[in-house]
Parts: sequence; structure tokens; C-alpha cells
Amino acid sequence: MKYAYLGPEGTFTESAVRRLAPSARQTVPFPTVPAAVEALRSGGFARAVIPLENSVSGVVPPTLGELVAHAGRLRIDAQVTIGVTFALMAAEGTRLADVRRVVSHPHALGQCRQWVARHLPHADTVVADSTAAAAAALAGGGPATDAAIAAPEAAARYGLRVLAHDIGARHDAMTRFVSLRRSGPDEPPTGRDRTTLLITSDRSAPGVLTGVLGELSRRQVSIAWIQSWPRQTARGRYHFLVEVDQHIAYPGLAEAVDAMRQGVDSLSLLGSYPYIVDREVEGERAAA
Amino acid sequence: MKYAYLGPEGTFTESAVRRLAPSARQTVPFPTVPAAVEALRSGGFARAVIPLENSVSGVVPPTLGELVAHAGRLRIDAQVTIGVTFALMAAEGTRLADVRRVVSHPHALGQCRQWVARHLPHADTVVADSTAAAAAALAGGGPATDAAIAAPEAAARYGLRVLAHDIGARHDAMTRFVSLRRSGPDEPPTGRDRTTLLITSDRSAPGVLTGVLGELSRRQVSIAWIQSWPRQTARGRYHFLVEVDQHIAYPGLAEAVDAMRQGVDSLSLLGSYPYIVDREVEGERAAA
Repeated sequence: MKYAYLGPEGTFTESAVRRLAPSARQTVPFPTVPAAVEALRSGGFARAVIPLENSVSGVVPPTLGELVAHAGRLRIDAQVTIGVTFALMAAEGTRLADVRRVVSHPHALGQCRQWVARHLPHADTVVADSTAAAAAALAGGGPATDAAIAAPEAAARYGLRVLAHDIGARHDAMTRFVSLRRSGPDEPPTGRDRTTLLITSDRSAPGVLTGVLGELSRRQVSIAWIQSWPRQTARGRYHFLVEVDQHIAYPGLAEAVDAMRQGVDSLSLLGSYPYIVDREVEGERAAA
Repeated sequence: MKYAYLGPEGTFTESAVRRLAPSARQTVPFPTVPAAVEALRSGGFARAVIPLENSVSGVVPPTLGELVAHAGRLRIDAQVTIGVTFALMAAEGTRLADVRRVVSHPHALGQCRQWVARHLPHADTVVADSTAAAAAALAGGGPATDAAIAAPEAAARYGLRVLAHDIGARHDAMTRFVSLRRSGPDEPPTGRDRTTLLITSDRSAPGVLTGVLGELSRRQVSIAWIQSWPRQTARGRYHFLVEVDQHIAYPGLAEAVDAMRQGVDSLSLLGSYPYIVDREVEGERAAA
């Protein structure tokens, strides 16, 4: 099965693809979220994996835009949450004491500033376009740097050795990814599933949104997440993307969706799918 | 009164500042949303104006992050929505027929692709970091370009002349901005106001969110907009930012807020403020 994903290689999105399909051989990075989705839509790929939300920096708006734009034609077939950790990596033979210049993306340099100040007080920092680009540049012998800060995945990808793991200030950062496929039936429930709904309604009546959400809570379905998204055809009005903690095979959710359809202009199911949390993240959460 | 805003000069955020305070003389651009907010927090500025949402590209996550991080210490004191239009501009004396190379940000070049193909079929395009940077480069005689695509504001700012107005494919694009100040009482209602609430609750009970939102609809208060924001201290759990179409001076909203406090872990008012829609946008909406 061919996977399109938000590149470049060696970033956290590639880790998400590996988590979903450890033995996938055909994984192709695309430069933007719309480009990865277009690769899926045009039929050349079976899945597109793109980031939905990071626990520190919030939603990824282009992904919401794609979900809304292609509702009814694309379907979410899985979500996976992975921990986002930064590692210091260098060429084989480089010791921590040798590191004078560290290259990474500004966001990662910011997240790892304290660690670098403590362990590499005399090192300069150099900016790259992405953490993967930093690792690639180091591996390619590009700029005169000794070490890169990137996802652990990048070390394996670019033949570098990890000098220090988990050097970011936030040890609990994580990113949620969605896997998309072209339309079709949902897989059966796995026991830990979510459903994403797209609700479109004129907001002139105060109770519309709470009325339709009430159909869920009345049937013991939890709203896990909700986002407004601007309607392109109606200024100042919104779609609502809602994630609930149940598979559509759960009778309470199916009933609620039927009832909700009565109260709104349109309601699309964007998919019922397994909600996968990486074992490492799960373990930390249990330990917290 | 000193205004900090998301720069550079000549962008739509500067237009928003002008709309809020036409005669403001001390307006200072900052390179990022957090930097503009920090300028306000540190006491050197009375207001910070930052983008909240664009009708095409969705929310601006760093702005949501700042609203959540500083809840209780900062207050929204106004929102303003302005139309986002692109203009082709050049140095005095340049005619449309002279234009061979057009410089702008890739997003603006994409939005204006059709117009350029029709009116400047032989022109090349050159990429800049922002639309304002494109106008500045042209005005400064930088790269060998003849015209820039930018906000109309940029023409005045950089001494350029507009050759063509409103050349983007989407004529109804708009951006909403928030004006922030340090904590203090809200201004009285203007007749067209909004209130932003930050709700934090454990999502284990299915009805919590719909229960609290129901307190609003029961009192004829409309939910205009709602966004989940990840809680930094509780993995997989969320804050909810809710905008309603009323001032807190409206008794129904004040009552609803009191009732909502009973059902959640915490509820902060981020401000009750005038909701300003630029006259141009308003006129187009009425005509639509």
C-alpha cells in the first residue's frame, strides 16, 4: 500500500506512518499538506498521513481546510498520536565535547535552549528550514556544523548517531496525525475509536449548536474536540468539526447523528476509525 | 496610546491598527505574535493587535496560544474584521505594459495567478518573504522587478502607485484581528459586541460541554465560534475558547456564566468588546 505524507523524510510525520504501517515500503514525502492530499485524491496513493494537531502549538490549519474541502470524498481511516522528542545527533566518532556548532529549526532550537546552555555552553547555533533538513545537511557535510537537533527518526534516516535523547524543555509534547483514504466503508470498531463529524448550520438561532451537541451527550457520547472553520460561501459563518469518543457502529452515536441531521443544514461523517496512541506516550500518561 | 502589532509594516495587521485607531502615531511592528504580546505585557505598549483568523486559511494558532496562556492577565478590548485584497503596485511612471517581473509572497502569487495570467501573460514571478517585503524590495530598487503584489496599505507605505486593485481570486477573503490590553474592566456595550470565554473542564463526563453551552442557548445567547486548545498539563484534554454574540452587561449572559461556572473546573472571561466589521466588508456582505 502506497503512503503519501507531509515530508521531508525523517520528520515526525514519517514516524506516524511507521507507527501505522511498520512494514510499508512505498512511503513518499510531499512538501505541503495539500500536495499530500492531492496525491491521494489523484489515485496514485492509498493513504495520506498529515498532522492534525500538536499539543504545544495547536491545530494545523491546512489539515482542517483539507478535511472540510473534501468532506464526502475523503475519509479518516485512523488517527495516531506520537510523542515529539528531540535528540542531539552527530556523525559517528563525534563526542559531545567536540560539538561547537549545532544546527536545527528555530522552533527546535528554542525548545532545547536550556539543555544546550547547560551541556554545550560554548556552542553556536545555526538555523535550518526543518529539523530533518538540519540532519540531512549535517550528514551531507554541508555547513560547518558538528551536531543537529532533530527527531530520533532522522538519525537512522541520515546515518547519524544520537548523542543525547529527549533534550526538549517539554517532555510531554505530542502530535496527532490523521490517515486519510478515498471514500468507502469504515473499518469495524477496535474498542478504542473515534468519529469525526462536520456540521454546517446557519448560526442565527442561538440553540442550534448546543441542540445538536445535546443529542450526543444525551446518549453518553463524549465530545473530545471541536473546531470552528470559516465557510467560504457565507461570510462570518462557520462549519464545526466535532470528534467524539465512539465508533458509528455504537447505536447511541448512530441515533444521535440521525437526530442531529434534523437540526442542521448538513452533517457529514468524515470517518469512524481506530484512535491509536503510541505506546511510549501511553506509558508516560499512565505514569503521570 | 502605543500599539504593538504583528509586522512587518504595510501588512493587513497594520491596516487593522489604523481601523481601530486612525490617528495613532506610535505603532510598532513585531516579528512574531508572541513578541507583540510580550511588548504589551512588559508595559511598554497599551495595546497589541494580532490576527486571530483568516476566512481562507483558518485560525492563527499562536494567537490562540497567547490568549490561553495569559487568560486573566490580558483582555480582548476589540475585534476588527477587514477585507483582505491584493493590489498590483509599481514605482511612479511604470505602466502595466512595462511589467515583466512581479514579486510577492507565494500565497499572494497563488491567489492572484489567474489575474496575472490574463493581464501579464509574459511576466515572470519572483518570491518574497511577505507581501510587505515585496513592496519594500521594489521601492528600495532591490531585485530587478517591475511590480509587487501586496496589501493596498503597502503602496502608501512604500511610495508606490497601485496599477490594479483587488486582483485576487477570492474577493470575499477577510481576516479577524484581536486588540489586547492588560487586565481591567471592559468598556460598556456598543450595540454590537462579543464576549470570549475560556472553559476548562475534565472531559470524562459526556455532557459537560453541552451542559455549559446549553446555559447560553437557554438564554438566547448565540455561540459564534468555538475552538479546542490542548491543555499543557493534561494530555489529551482541552480548553475550549467560545465566542458569543453578547456583551457581559447583557443579563442573560451574566446569568449563563454564573451557571456555567458550577459545571466546569474553571471559566475565565477574556473580555467583552466591540465587534467591528470594516465598512467595505459590511457593504459587500449586504450586497451579496
